[in-house]
Amino acid sequence: MALTAAVIDRTVRAALEEDAPSGDLTSECLVPADASIEAALVARQPGVLAGGPVFAAAFALTDPRVVVDLRVADGTAFGADDVLATVHGPARSVLQAERVGLNFVQRMSGIATLTARYVEAVSGTRARIVDTRKTTPGLRAFERYAVTAGGGRNHRASLSDAVLAKDNHLAVLAAGGANLSEALRSVRAALPHTVHLEVEVDRLDQIEQVLGGGVDTIMLDNFSLEDLRAGVALVAGRATVEASGGVDLDTVAAIAATGVDVISVGALTHSAPALDLGLDATVHVAAMEPA
Amino acid sequence: MALTAAVIDRTVRAALEEDAPSGDLTSECLVPADASIEAALVARQPGVLAGGPVFAAAFALTDPRVVVDLRVADGTAFGADDVLATVHGPARSVLQAERVGLNFVQRMSGIATLTARYVEAVSGTRARIVDTRKTTPGLRAFERYAVTAGGGRNHRASLSDAVLAKDNHLAVLAAGGANLSEALRSVRAALPHTVHLEVEVDRLDQIEQVLGGGVDTIMLDNFSLEDLRAGVALVAGRATVEASGGVDLDTVAAIAATGVDVISVGALTHSAPALDLGLDATVHVAAMEPA
Amino acid sequence: MALTAAVIDRTVRAALEEDAPSGDLTSECLVPADASIEAALVARQPGVLAGGPVFAAAFALTDPRVVVDLRVADGTAFGADDVLATVHGPARSVLQAERVGLNFVQRMSGIATLTARYVEAVSGTRARIVDTRKTTPGLRAFERYAVTAGGGRNHRASLSDAVLAKDNHLAVLAAGGANLSEALRSVRAALPHTVHLEVEVDRLDQIEQVLGGGVDTIMLDNFSLEDLRAGVALVAGRATVEASGGVDLDTVAAIAATGVDVISVGALTHSAPALDLGLDATVHVAAMEPA
Amino acid sequence: MALTAAVIDRTVRAALEEDAPSGDLTSECLVPADASIEAALVARQPGVLAGGPVFAAAFALTDPRVVVDLRVADGTAFGADDVLATVHGPARSVLQAERVGLNFVQRMSGIATLTARYVEAVSGTRARIVDTRKTTPGLRAFERYAVTAGGGRNHRASLSDAVLAKDNHLAVLAAGGANLSEALRSVRAALPHTVHLEVEVDRLDQIEQVLGGGVDTIMLDNFSLEDLRAGVALVAGRATVEASGGVDLDTVAAIAATGVDVISVGALTHSAPALDLGLDATVHVAAMEPA
Amino acid sequence: MALTAAVIDRTVRAALEEDAPSGDLTSECLVPADASIEAALVARQPGVLAGGPVFAAAFALTDPRVVVDLRVADGTAFGADDVLATVHGPARSVLQAERVGLNFVQRMSGIATLTARYVEAVSGTRARIVDTRKTTPGLRAFERYAVTAGGGRNHRASLSDAVLAKDNHLAVLAAGGANLSEALRSVRAALPHTVHLEVEVDRLDQIEQVLGGGVDTIMLDNFSLEDLRAGVALVAGRATVEASGGVDLDTVAAIAATGVDVISVGALTHSAPALDLGLDATVHVAAMEPA
Amino acid sequence: MALTAAVIDRTVRAALEEDAPSGDLTSECLVPADASIEAALVARQPGVLAGGPVFAAAFALTDPRVVVDLRVADGTAFGADDVLATVHGPARSVLQAERVGLNFVQRMSGIATLTARYVEAVSGTRARIVDTRKTTPGLRAFERYAVTAGGGRNHRASLSDAVLAKDNHLAVLAAGGANLSEALRSVRAALPHTVHLEVEVDRLDQIEQVLGGGVDTIMLDNFSLEDLRAGVALVAGRATVEASGGVDLDTVAAIAATGVDVISVGALTHSAPALDLGLDATVHVAAMEPA
Repeated sequence: MALTAAVIDRTVRAALEEDAPSGDLTSECLVPADASIEAALVARQPGVLAGGPVFAAAFALTDPRVVVDLRVADGTAFGADDVLATVHGPARSVLQAERVGLNFVQRMSGIATLTARYVEAVSGTRARIVDTRKTTPGLRAFERYAVTAGGGRNHRASLSDAVLAKDNHLAVLAAGGANLSEALRSVRAALPHTVHLEVEVDRLDQIEQVLGGGVDTIMLDNFSLEDLRAGVALVAGRATVEASGGVDLDTVAAIAATGVDVISVGALTHSAPALDLGLDATVHVAAMEPA
Repeated sequence: MALTAAVIDRTVRAALEEDAPSGDLTSECLVPADASIEAALVARQPGVLAGGPVFAAAFALTDPRVVVDLRVADGTAFGADDVLATVHGPARSVLQAERVGLNFVQRMSGIATLTARYVEAVSGTRARIVDTRKTTPGLRAFERYAVTAGGGRNHRASLSDAVLAKDNHLAVLAAGGANLSEALRSVRAALPHTVHLEVEVDRLDQIEQVLGGGVDTIMLDNFSLEDLRAGVALVAGRATVEASGGVDLDTVAAIAATGVDVISVGALTHSAPALDLGLDATVHVAAMEPA
Repeated sequence: MALTAAVIDRTVRAALEEDAPSGDLTSECLVPADASIEAALVARQPGVLAGGPVFAAAFALTDPRVVVDLRVADGTAFGADDVLATVHGPARSVLQAERVGLNFVQRMSGIATLTARYVEAVSGTRARIVDTRKTTPGLRAFERYAVTAGGGRNHRASLSDAVLAKDNHLAVLAAGGANLSEALRSVRAALPHTVHLEVEVDRLDQIEQVLGGGVDTIMLDNFSLEDLRAGVALVAGRATVEASGGVDLDTVAAIAATGVDVISVGALTHSAPALDLGLDATVHVAAMEPA
Repeated sequence: MALTAAVIDRTVRAALEEDAPSGDLTSECLVPADASIEAALVARQPGVLAGGPVFAAAFALTDPRVVVDLRVADGTAFGADDVLATVHGPARSVLQAERVGLNFVQRMSGIATLTARYVEAVSGTRARIVDTRKTTPGLRAFERYAVTAGGGRNHRASLSDAVLAKDNHLAVLAAGGANLSEALRSVRAALPHTVHLEVEVDRLDQIEQVLGGGVDTIMLDNFSLEDLRAGVALVAGRATVEASGGVDLDTVAAIAATGVDVISVGALTHSAPALDLGLDATVHVAAMEPA
Repeated sequence: MALTAAVIDRTVRAALEEDAPSGDLTSECLVPADASIEAALVARQPGVLAGGPVFAAAFALTDPRVVVDLRVADGTAFGADDVLATVHGPARSVLQAERVGLNFVQRMSGIATLTARYVEAVSGTRARIVDTRKTTPGLRAFERYAVTAGGGRNHRASLSDAVLAKDNHLAVLAAGGANLSEALRSVRAALPHTVHLEVEVDRLDQIEQVLGGGVDTIMLDNFSLEDLRAGVALVAGRATVEASGGVDLDTVAAIAATGVDVISVGALTHSAPALDLGLDATVHVAAMEPA
Repeated sequence: MALTAAVIDRTVRAALEEDAPSGDLTSECLVPADASIEAALVARQPGVLAGGPVFAAAFALTDPRVVVDLRVADGTAFGADDVLATVHGPARSVLQAERVGLNFVQRMSGIATLTARYVEAVSGTRARIVDTRKTTPGLRAFERYAVTAGGGRNHRASLSDAVLAKDNHLAVLAAGGANLSEALRSVRAALPHTVHLEVEVDRLDQIEQVLGGGVDTIMLDNFSLEDLRAGVALVAGRATVEASGGVDLDTVAAIAATGVDVISVGALTHSAPALDLGLDATVHVAAMEPA
């Protein structure tokens, strides 16, 4: 949920290393060591911010003398041309860290901005918009955090912290002749009492069998609106109801209106375009005060 | 350029660990240890493949008993419903690795597919489409490779392997009173002879000064078509000419027609949506032959 | 729950490195490179096995030529003098890996054996015996696994996968003037729907307020037997009931008899003595067949 | 011997990551960011402290704003209810780090306390109590340090820093037809002159042969008290004499009285129960002064 | 080129860990914790300094209380008995870090000093002295930096940042029947436009074919002085000319006089003896002021 | 002493990564994927081999299909033009790994060869030639191994495994008013009984005081030959005698003739030039048999 300092530190350091494994040739050759620069992170389009502290970390981990002043908090909507942060410090370091800082904040804000559009679309309903495991390898914590910055909620963090039985799991079970309700009950007995048990169904007629196994959440996958409504009625509060599949900005409001509790949207993380933010230098000074 | 085995191994292992830090609760609880599964990686939309070997590595690093047969080579165009690969092995392992494998191949194929559209748009011109440093933190090698799979070419890998002096570098220099041509000549003398020297200009009148410094490539940033043409004429073969800024699928052909050598496109890596590929189970068997 | 191959590999490698950072001086100096040895892992006292595969990994990661044959599966009870596994291979490697292999399997079996005694003590009741976060730093996955091998169940894996509000959390809340029921409801709304919400109470009169917040589990901490019975009655199935505090082998049966669902026992992992297992060499051969 | 800052830093960071891979859900949800807490590390039973600085590091590495004041130095005996340290800082951070801090200091103090009992039991003799390689994987440095905090001494750190030839090494040598004295002399010639050479014997009649090889220490393994006395007399100061096997708090004084120089005790590290220490919150304040 | 803080930090930490994996037994046992020391880094022979900041990092990473004052900047020539730096701080820490600090600065200064002799030998010619990939594994960045401190220039950093086709590459190509000029042209088209293309030739008659492929640099390997002169004339400014092979301090001036642009010298890094620098304690104080 | 597989694996992987962080551009562009090559590791000067298995690992870790056949064992003397190993496999992989493999084996053989000259110079005396801590950062294990390959012996591995009190330690002690003999006796009591205690003296009159502290080895630092003889006589077998300082190939025989037991030589590792070994391709084949 929150992004831990350890995760930011480790991931941003790796990104800086990736982008400058043996330093920044350009800055070293062209920029005097004592030159300073002031710059502003400026929005080129409206959106919702996520990743301000990650942007700041890119500079701080490059050179602790760089000062980043975050003007806008994560989760805040902003307009085009708004100044989101200011950066001041040694020009070599600011120019070296710029791209890595932008790469993080543009992607995270892209996710937050898209999420906010989905959340807005379902406002007034009981439905919460949640993410999926369709995240960028290595950046799941950052992307889950960006979803919450956009007003969304998170689904499970990984395969290790909740059970979500999908069609293939059930098919393997069925191929082995297992009774689903019984299988789910024995899963429940074997799991830590703190583990959430969710099962995906493809058809209305699977619902009773799954509820018989004592699940916490039932996922209605690729259901028509009519079937979603029927499913919500069938479940009747005995479990949380999640809708998934075929969700986009055109369909999400109608899906929410069926009364489901949760709508999971893979596109939040797998297809959000980067938000257009830029770093504009405002003042260049060729000689810094002594550090 | 090529994706090294070491990079694939390290990155895919980290992604698997991120997605299952302490195992896959669902598979362990619901899927018998001796069940096997056959599945196919199927295209749900047309595109260009990138990341087949990375997809395969996700399964192999989860369980060496899983066999992945790549039916389509990276860089190949395919149609909707085409089978791109088949997967066979222990059901627990296949289901555990599925999402990580898909997360890689969908993103990489998204990039390759978008790149191919740009490359197609400039066919018949001398322009090559190249990527930028606007890549996903931690995945630069994968994304640069995906660009080449789509027929694009790469720009520099990082800040450490080529010089690219941008507006802010030049502004700091100017603030310090330096002469640009001289500064570039002294940079050249200090750099390894193997390092490429590229400079970005914003106006036509900067070109002669930059060429006077002896650069390898001159980048014309956010030039109008008219100015691009003028710039190409001015440079007159004395350096490689790169166009950047304001490039999209609507404008790229016209930009290419101006005679530039290189067109860099940030969107290739920062905003390509994931391609819709899925893993369809074809056969479930509850008991495997002994390993 | 299950111990992943990646975790075993990483942890056992680190332990081998810790025990022989620059090799085994004794074996290198005294044992001919071509000598082989056969040995047996023998129980010096009865118990329940946990960590057989970890024991085997210590040898395999030292030298893939060593063959370990596990005679007894994890979770199985055995008697004194039982042979639990046999080991055969190059004498240098077997002798080098011996202590690390034993250090793992003796500790893990110590935990499994102690757990089994607790589980046996509550047999016939609805109570499950679970572990806590009072595990050895670096070995949590191994110790949680050992608890399940002894017939116990796990509690949450870490601070990141379930909420457990303890006295200090509630006291800080109270100091801030928050209403507990409302605070819990807003926590629930902010958390992923897959996250379990558990709250610890110290007195019976807190129970209704906590249930009003909609928790999944209520922990009755350091309650008398009488109060535990009263607590179970008050909760009346509206949440899972966990007893904690003051649990030992003398008290656990009576606690279980109060009707609680879960009994957490820190001693399972923080104070289980290592089980006495030894590696007895059975045959020494000074020259091996060529590898 | 001393615990290096690098080892503490690395190990405590890993433990914190293990306990909160993606943050502390409970604190984040329930505890206001600006709440502070004061707490005391209190002994619930008498003992000897080890690991105060490690306890402190758990808090400092979670949040540098937390202040830990160690009231009692490592190696000091304390009584029940004594305050060993105080902790003050942001409530979220204190509550997040608490369990990891306790897990270290309770285990280490358990070892120091048990060691102190052995050391007390042999006081007045020439015998020193030393540890063995039967340590917890990953925590050897911490446990060896805890032994010294309890007044014990250390044996070799690993297989790489001293030679200790045990029964199996000698048996392999014998199977190959080697002469033990000669073998030991050639080992001595091949080893760095700084490496200590120790050999284990099971019977009195092996002693002369081993001394003939020029060893530094001779270990009398599982000898009766009578044989220990005879062994000490036989060695007659030509080597250090170590007793091992069958050592417990009931037997150690008699073993020490035989005149041996060193008594090694595996139980110090493999079976010391955690000492009962707790963190008692003393003051909760809902709003901190600005950091 | 420059040595990044991240690389220094990582490499020096590893070296300190290598030299004191579990602390410095001698200092801990013999030196009081509150003793301080003042010492000077003194040249025992003349040379050129490289690695002052690395020397300082060895102390700072051991103990931040140690103060190192660098009296001489990297790249500066000094005489025997010159004081290059002073060190002041806790005696334990200074004595622990001394050897690691010296190991770095002696090696790096050895390289800088040897490089300076080569650079001096070619002064007045157009030739630059450059290093090769014949560096110490793990220390390439340090050694390339030391070469520049000695007035040399760098060649490519690794196999990943420039193309250098050697005899074996060309022989494999020839064995496959490829036309060299065509092969080089297609290589150029496939490479990023920022990648430098260099080809090694063994004979004068290969030069035209290679130039026909459009290379940036042509390396004349093991050419006689006469052939070097002929090669320079043949190339006639169409590419940079590098001489390699058979270069030593006796031959380098004559090679430079042939007009080549670049002379690569493996010996700079593979065979430079460590420079004789020592740390002389000037004042010992048994008790430090409180930290 | 021996080089462990884990150390070789880790260090060679890091060196390969350093030399080709994103692959070998040249091989990928110029060498067909199916071309194979045969090559020989050939001595260009006589010497003693060290690092054959490390050389082999460079190829195996690049591509397991490469076959390296070591013709000469480590520790063996060879002549100019001798073939030390053959290499066969995919040309891309062989050419990529070549430089890293050579960098290791040339340095290690340089050390072994130099060591052998020292060992030869003292043959017939009781003196052993040993290394020091003046090793290349990161490569200590490789260099200590190379010394033994050349017939030398090792000194302590690090600051953590033996005590060596030098002049500065003694000076700090003296500044604090400590009595040296007493200080040494109390050090001995505090250290593990397995730790070797060595003390450096600068003058003959310090010897008795040091022997009074009960040391294992006494180091006579920078003694004249006359004083060395006197020192050996004074010590009279009560401790091992080590000579250090001012040792080179011209002086070592005379030093050995004084009767010292150990002569430590920093130059073995800090100034041995790389031995001239080369990889000569013998056969190029453009198409390999299928792997």
